[in-house]
Amino acid sequence: MPLVRITVPQGVPAERRRALADGVHGALVETASVPPDDRFQVIEEVPPDNLIFSRTYLGLAHTGPMAFVQIFLNQGRTVDVKKALYARIADAGIAAGFRREDVLVNLVEVTRENWCFGGGVMSYPPAP
Amino acid sequence: MPLVRITVPQGVPAERRRALADGVHGALVETASVPPDDRFQVIEEVPPDNLIFSRTYLGLAHTGPMAFVQIFLNQGRTVDVKKALYARIADAGIAAGFRREDVLVNLVEVTRENWCFGGGVMSYPPAP
Amino acid sequence: MPLVRITVPQGVPAERRRALADGVHGALVETASVPPDDRFQVIEEVPPDNLIFSRTYLGLAHTGPMAFVQIFLNQGRTVDVKKALYARIADAGIAAGFRREDVLVNLVEVTRENWCFGGGVMSYPPAP
Repeated sequence: MPLVRITVPQGVPAERRRALADGVHGALVETASVPPDDRFQVIEEVPPDNLIFSRTYLGLAHTGPMAFVQIFLNQGRTVDVKKALYARIADAGIAAGFRREDVLVNLVEVTRENWCFGGGVMSYPPAP
Repeated sequence: MPLVRITVPQGVPAERRRALADGVHGALVETASVPPDDRFQVIEEVPPDNLIFSRTYLGLAHTGPMAFVQIFLNQGRTVDVKKALYARIADAGIAAGFRREDVLVNLVEVTRENWCFGGGVMSYPPAP
Repeated sequence: MPLVRITVPQGVPAERRRALADGVHGALVETASVPPDDRFQVIEEVPPDNLIFSRTYLGLAHTGPMAFVQIFLNQGRTVDVKKALYARIADAGIAAGFRREDVLVNLVEVTRENWCFGGGVMSYPPAP
């Protein structure tokens, strides 16, 4: 059920992009109860000048290339699950050759009724 | 009021991309009370390797090319409206040459105050 | 904390894209209590035919090029803050060479727990 948008600057090699996408999915499976075959991801590449980031926010030394990982998923994960997810995604970033500081994650939560994974039908039964 | 992001792999011809966008908008008009002239859509094309999808989730045989249709809209549509919307978007996908299984829809709901369609003004009166 | 996606048609020169991004960030700082160094933005350029917009919705004469400005941010801004933000972003659009009518803004609000700006840690303490 997550839909994941990963945005990176052009120039990150295909293997590293794929490694990051693999790692983000693995993090969702391991920490956030996402089924292994529930994987839908887009990798967006933009010219480096089109990916703009602060170098100092919250004391984090962003140097780039940064990866913006935006995850649309069902609401209801606990704070602890989200913390574990962030940590695991940072690990995935390192495995993909990014600096730990340079992987941003944003979660956007939706309701169960808001998904159709194909076939024209609502994928999950609505909450009672 | 919807803002629609349609993501497809590169290689889908312009006519099919446009047909899908037309069909998604038509589905919103017919099922979800969207005014016909309330149409704002982006079609994103990414290299096929950058659009990653499970081939088996929920028993749906995704073969691709897939289209990810993400719709940002005001909250408040009923479950029945959403179901009708999904069905109609799948029809639109077929009309645009996609397999019925290969059109994913995700709704992201926001409040009425969260739109400015231009001119620097809030487009809808806030909920009382 | 905002993550900003700015979508424009290909052909808008780099200086104007940057001016718009600068202006959107300035608007967030001036009207919505965003720290100056809390800036994370993506500019997406798509072929003009892939950015589809009504020319008449709500009486606004959209002629293009349009800019779609989507801002993911923490919930809680008041209606007045949002109104001020829209006005200031429209000003920013003009300064960047866009018509006032041609800058669309959509806010998507999330909770405080939904951000990791890097380093694998939750960036803001959860709401009590």
